Amino acid sequence: MSSIPRDQWYVAAYGREIGGELFTRTVCGEPILFWRTRSGEVAAVSDRCVHRRFPLSQEPGRLVDDQVVCGYHGFTYGADGVCVSVPGQTRVPRTARLKKYPVVEQDTFVWVWIGDPEGADASRIPRAPWLASPSYSTVSGMEPLQARFGLLVDNLLDLSHETYLHGGYIGTPEVADTPITTEVDEEAGIVRVSRHIDDAECPPFYANSTGLTGRITRWQDIEYSPPCLYTLHSRIAPAGVLPDAGGGDPHAFHVEVVYAITPETERTTHDFWAVARDFALDDQDVTDYLAHQNRVVVLQDVVALNTLEKVIADEPAQYQELSINIDTGGLAARRMLARMSAGTSGQGAPAAAGRPR
Amino acid sequence: MSSIPRDQWYVAAYGREIGGELFTRTVCGEPILFWRTRSGEVAAVSDRCVHRRFPLSQEPGRLVDDQVVCGYHGFTYGADGVCVSVPGQTRVPRTARLKKYPVVEQDTFVWVWIGDPEGADASRIPRAPWLASPSYSTVSGMEPLQARFGLLVDNLLDLSHETYLHGGYIGTPEVADTPITTEVDEEAGIVRVSRHIDDAECPPFYANSTGLTGRITRWQDIEYSPPCLYTLHSRIAPAGVLPDAGGGDPHAFHVEVVYAITPETERTTHDFWAVARDFALDDQDVTDYLAHQNRVVVLQDVVALNTLEKVIADEPAQYQELSINIDTGGLAARRMLARMSAGTSGQGAPAAAGRPR
Amino acid sequence: MSSIPRDQWYVAAYGREIGGELFTRTVCGEPILFWRTRSGEVAAVSDRCVHRRFPLSQEPGRLVDDQVVCGYHGFTYGADGVCVSVPGQTRVPRTARLKKYPVVEQDTFVWVWIGDPEGADASRIPRAPWLASPSYSTVSGMEPLQARFGLLVDNLLDLSHETYLHGGYIGTPEVADTPITTEVDEEAGIVRVSRHIDDAECPPFYANSTGLTGRITRWQDIEYSPPCLYTLHSRIAPAGVLPDAGGGDPHAFHVEVVYAITPETERTTHDFWAVARDFALDDQDVTDYLAHQNRVVVLQDVVALNTLEKVIADEPAQYQELSINIDTGGLAARRMLARMSAGTSGQGAPAAAGRPR
Repeated sequence: MSSIPRDQWYVAAYGREIGGELFTRTVCGEPILFWRTRSGEVAAVSDRCVHRRFPLSQEPGRLVDDQVVCGYHGFTYGADGVCVSVPGQTRVPRTARLKKYPVVEQDTFVWVWIGDPEGADASRIPRAPWLASPSYSTVSGMEPLQARFGLLVDNLLDLSHETYLHGGYIGTPEVADTPITTEVDEEAGIVRVSRHIDDAECPPFYANSTGLTGRITRWQDIEYSPPCLYTLHSRIAPAGVLPDAGGGDPHAFHVEVVYAITPETERTTHDFWAVARDFALDDQDVTDYLAHQNRVVVLQDVVALNTLEKVIADEPAQYQELSINIDTGGLAARRMLARMSAGTSGQGAPAAAGRPR
Repeated sequence: MSSIPRDQWYVAAYGREIGGELFTRTVCGEPILFWRTRSGEVAAVSDRCVHRRFPLSQEPGRLVDDQVVCGYHGFTYGADGVCVSVPGQTRVPRTARLKKYPVVEQDTFVWVWIGDPEGADASRIPRAPWLASPSYSTVSGMEPLQARFGLLVDNLLDLSHETYLHGGYIGTPEVADTPITTEVDEEAGIVRVSRHIDDAECPPFYANSTGLTGRITRWQDIEYSPPCLYTLHSRIAPAGVLPDAGGGDPHAFHVEVVYAITPETERTTHDFWAVARDFALDDQDVTDYLAHQNRVVVLQDVVALNTLEKVIADEPAQYQELSINIDTGGLAARRMLARMSAGTSGQGAPAAAGRPR
Repeated sequence: MSSIPRDQWYVAAYGREIGGELFTRTVCGEPILFWRTRSGEVAAVSDRCVHRRFPLSQEPGRLVDDQVVCGYHGFTYGADGVCVSVPGQTRVPRTARLKKYPVVEQDTFVWVWIGDPEGADASRIPRAPWLASPSYSTVSGMEPLQARFGLLVDNLLDLSHETYLHGGYIGTPEVADTPITTEVDEEAGIVRVSRHIDDAECPPFYANSTGLTGRITRWQDIEYSPPCLYTLHSRIAPAGVLPDAGGGDPHAFHVEVVYAITPETERTTHDFWAVARDFALDDQDVTDYLAHQNRVVVLQDVVALNTLEKVIADEPAQYQELSINIDTGGLAARRMLARMSAGTSGQGAPAAAGRPR
């Protein structure tokens, strides 16, 4: 039984990764071949020749005039997946076509629909508008994770781990000490977890990028749209500085931390991360600093989650975790994901998903 | 359920590989110990001590006077597999004997019989007389394949892949473009696939070895004797030159490409290859060129087939291939192999083996 | 079905390995966290945080004032395993406690009890008093084994392998040639195997450490207390020299070779070894020589047993070994281990454990 929801949109790549060369990435266990056609569209088809399953992305396979030629026996396909030529005969079998994936390029991401193409409604794709906005400056990357995607969901929904796993980078004691509020919007399919810290130490990540030197007010407002998109709205201001009555917030620094959590297989994950800021937009030093520091932080998570995946592989069946209040958001996310992967609608959560004690 | 036919002869080694030292190779999942006795015979017995299963080929195990002494506790066996000495007691248990394999050395190969020794009829071993003939000059080798043997059978029965996977080496466009004729001799247990190309570009492999510079007539006549022996009779001549009425063929170059396809395990294979030519017999440059070039070509197959083995490991159950006319020979071979591994005689093929569309 | 006996004491470490830093070792499949508290006691608790199973030994986890702080979310535990602090709330769940292991430090070893703590009777731990005795000089170490513990038990109970696997180190022809006597004390839970060699070549291991140059009398008296502790009482004297009538033995050299055989997992083992001698107590050259030589010998076993583990993984089910007289002690040990792991008391051995032929 897979724990990966199907009939869902997933981020497969950044748009910048797809050019005029063959590009392959496995999403939810499905190997997908991408290229950008001469008209600028992203083609996405199965990366397995229908003949003898050879990966079309593998050399000496190649693109010729927007068509991909299999490197084993030369089966040739268009961007629509339809086979146009086979060796040794002029008739091409009617069934010779690659699975074609619905694709939407949006907010710098290439989204693909995994599941029944009938359900591929582009308007359901959650947004991360900051990543492509001129009002923000963004750094981003992707790290491969040798761990199931649910472990990354757990990780990101409970930021108390910043204090410990990321101490000296983005964590300070106040993060773990401050209680959270959790809100689950079943209808919209969003989990929200908020932590508003009135008076905190400023961690190096924010001190070095904003220039703030004293105590800060630090707000963390998470919005997770299962299965794939996670945003942390991070607000940093001098201690005591709040948004003004009209909603303006000129004395605060805003960072939108975006993750796209894409299962590669049941046990591996593509961990896309982006950090968009509304300050120091053209300061290359800040850009370089945040790009490097955030990657370091992501890699700290990667090490921890890869360890957990190995721990799970070796542990006895029926192993029981213990959950507390900080896990409320993560447990809600697990319930929504379990419903999604079971293909049921939202009436009631499986007991097995756990509850805080 | 194994897909490896038993009660069959397989090539275990070249004769030159077996000398006065212990030599081990696994054939069809059975680890076999070889050595050449002082009388020049090849001994072949199980490479597992009957006592505590220690591999007899492993140091400090050694040969002493045509007997093998186990490196763990010193159990000692003759070339007939019978144990002649055990530690701590003079009586040797009657059941202490290694499985002994029927062996035939022929055409430079060491053939072993896998299965019930009762059925080991040496006259059934298919022949490759060119390899030991003074009228031919031969280069040969063996490459280990991390893929099931059936993938190599598929590969060799459909040479249209030369155009793509081996383009610039042995493939030209005409190979994939020219239809094949297939003939299955159920009684003799042979699959024949022929492709006669009237007018083709001469690929580097043949141009550099024959000296031909213009267009050529190129014949490929495959004979596969499942499970192990495959021969490609390759005839290269200046375009339009055919054998004379009496069957003589003095203006053509003949190459016998021989493969022995030996399962090591269910998922790995010994890929023995040899190229015998009837021209430039003493030209060391041609010998060196063909040895190097053919190994390059074999390694291109190894990379492709190792990939396919991984693809199969990750794909969903019930995955369906699509077959076309070029696959007729390969599908016939699969049916014969399926009957052989099921131990049935030749009346009717399983539907699951596929058919061309 | 595990073959590892539970409700047993096992050696987890040498006392010298456990200090004021976190130390982790897996015993019988259970990952255990050790440290030495400021009062000098060895703490042993489960190396998995109760919250999200993060290994407490993994960075940035750390010890603070004899308490261990989880590196993921900061759950904090005392040496008794009780959780004293969790993030984001002041109430600590009652069930938040790590499994605590009974520990006894004795004879330089740290013993842990695996199983139901109710049964942890320290008086049942077998003794190896030479290791901590001022009358002996000891060298010791531990080698990780990629093989099941039963293979090491087989190895150590049948020393005829010294002649072959350790020839030129500790083996000479007389070891394999001399019959053994075996005695099984079911009540005490001890297997004894003795081999008294009247007149033998002196192997380098003993020649170089004792200075003896001629023929020797060599006694090997094994005591194995399943599952973990093995002692070889080794007596070396000039040929013909026996203990005197009063039991004194001033002209012999005595070596106590001790192994602690601790399953790490079903297929891997901690191979603790020690060599204690009653001569040349302060001779550093002898100490260095024995430490190096014995490690070489242990590594010869490691190579052989790692090979056997791979052989077992690849062999057909129902593979049958052949046993002879030298295996009497090993077979008795297997029967006792099988009863222990089945949790039954000692009335009759399973037929499957084999018998000598």
